[in-house]
Amino acid sequence: MPPVTTDTSARGPRTRLAPDQRRTQLLDLGVSLLATRSLDELTIDVLAEEAGISRGLLYHYFGNKHDFREAVVRRAVADLVVQTAPPEGGEPLERLLASVAAYVDYVVANYQGYVSIVRGAAGGNETMRQVYEETRAALTDRIFTEDAQGEIIPDTPAARLMVRGWSAMGEEMVLTWVTDPRGVTRDQLLEALAASLPALVDLLH
Amino acid sequence: MPPVTTDTSARGPRTRLAPDQRRTQLLDLGVSLLATRSLDELTIDVLAEEAGISRGLLYHYFGNKHDFREAVVRRAVADLVVQTAPPEGGEPLERLLASVAAYVDYVVANYQGYVSIVRGAAGGNETMRQVYEETRAALTDRIFTEDAQGEIIPDTPAARLMVRGWSAMGEEMVLTWVTDPRGVTRDQLLEALAASLPALVDLLH
Repeated sequence: MPPVTTDTSARGPRTRLAPDQRRTQLLDLGVSLLATRSLDELTIDVLAEEAGISRGLLYHYFGNKHDFREAVVRRAVADLVVQTAPPEGGEPLERLLASVAAYVDYVVANYQGYVSIVRGAAGGNETMRQVYEETRAALTDRIFTEDAQGEIIPDTPAARLMVRGWSAMGEEMVLTWVTDPRGVTRDQLLEALAASLPALVDLLH
Repeated sequence: MPPVTTDTSARGPRTRLAPDQRRTQLLDLGVSLLATRSLDELTIDVLAEEAGISRGLLYHYFGNKHDFREAVVRRAVADLVVQTAPPEGGEPLERLLASVAAYVDYVVANYQGYVSIVRGAAGGNETMRQVYEETRAALTDRIFTEDAQGEIIPDTPAARLMVRGWSAMGEEMVLTWVTDPRGVTRDQLLEALAASLPALVDLLH
């Protein structure tokens, strides 16, 4: 009977994992590589080298370059949605502040990959656009499900339009701030982003 | 002596114009075609058919497909900057409102082409990205040169970051509103966009 391996890193080519687990592990590695690379730079070759397995095997798991990148992006944005979920209890504005803080931390930690997803650097690919839109919808819809009593925002078409605008504003400001934080502290940015949402919604009704 | 033609439309293949004038005329036609088409749909073939001249002659004027699209986009965004210039005199907020109204009208009149420029549907082309960034910079810098006394916005790094965010917010809201105006009138949208700028700048300092 062979010894049971306890190596769970994707670098161990001989690790015995079910195909699903192996694919998940490779996706995790892809997501971590994307953090410091643009989508264009995230290739099957790079993953093969980092994972220590053959390109052929990666094609077996991911089909082709586009499917591979799409799978990595879907997983990356799923992480974003989970990581930016507001805490369970507390005041609505405090929960919003915590969620915004988690978003800023995510962008800082994953800048290269995230900016390439946002900028559509993947070549104007329609699927990527769709993944991006679904993610933004998930993030903005959550504002309404998390604030179901409408404590800070009523659920109206006008408020939904404003939340969409606020979301685009936050994305642009955080991406800009990460590359040039002059004159604005992290706390100032977080407070302005959280406070601006109810203020903006008040302006459109 | 041949009769002098007074046909100034780009459809007249026999119109006698200097090469510069002809190129300008073809660009104007390209911009007007882009209004109701995405960049991907704006081809040399389409322009050739609309202008009633050969593809070969268009390649003579524009080099290749990419240069042609870039020239059209540069002209389209230059039009946007001119059309959204605030009026000469008046109260700062009234001037901002007029500028925002002109922006909304531009997007309504040029939706297909504009959305494709914004979404980077040109295939993540780096030059297009640059043209887009230059345009956004021109539009946001104007906020500060037009309000040189800082009547509504002081010129600080924090205010510049906020104006950038506000600009992204306005773009997203107007693009969304044009396709789905439910629950929000044009006046409500314009007033919310204009009023939100000083309100947002107040939140970040």
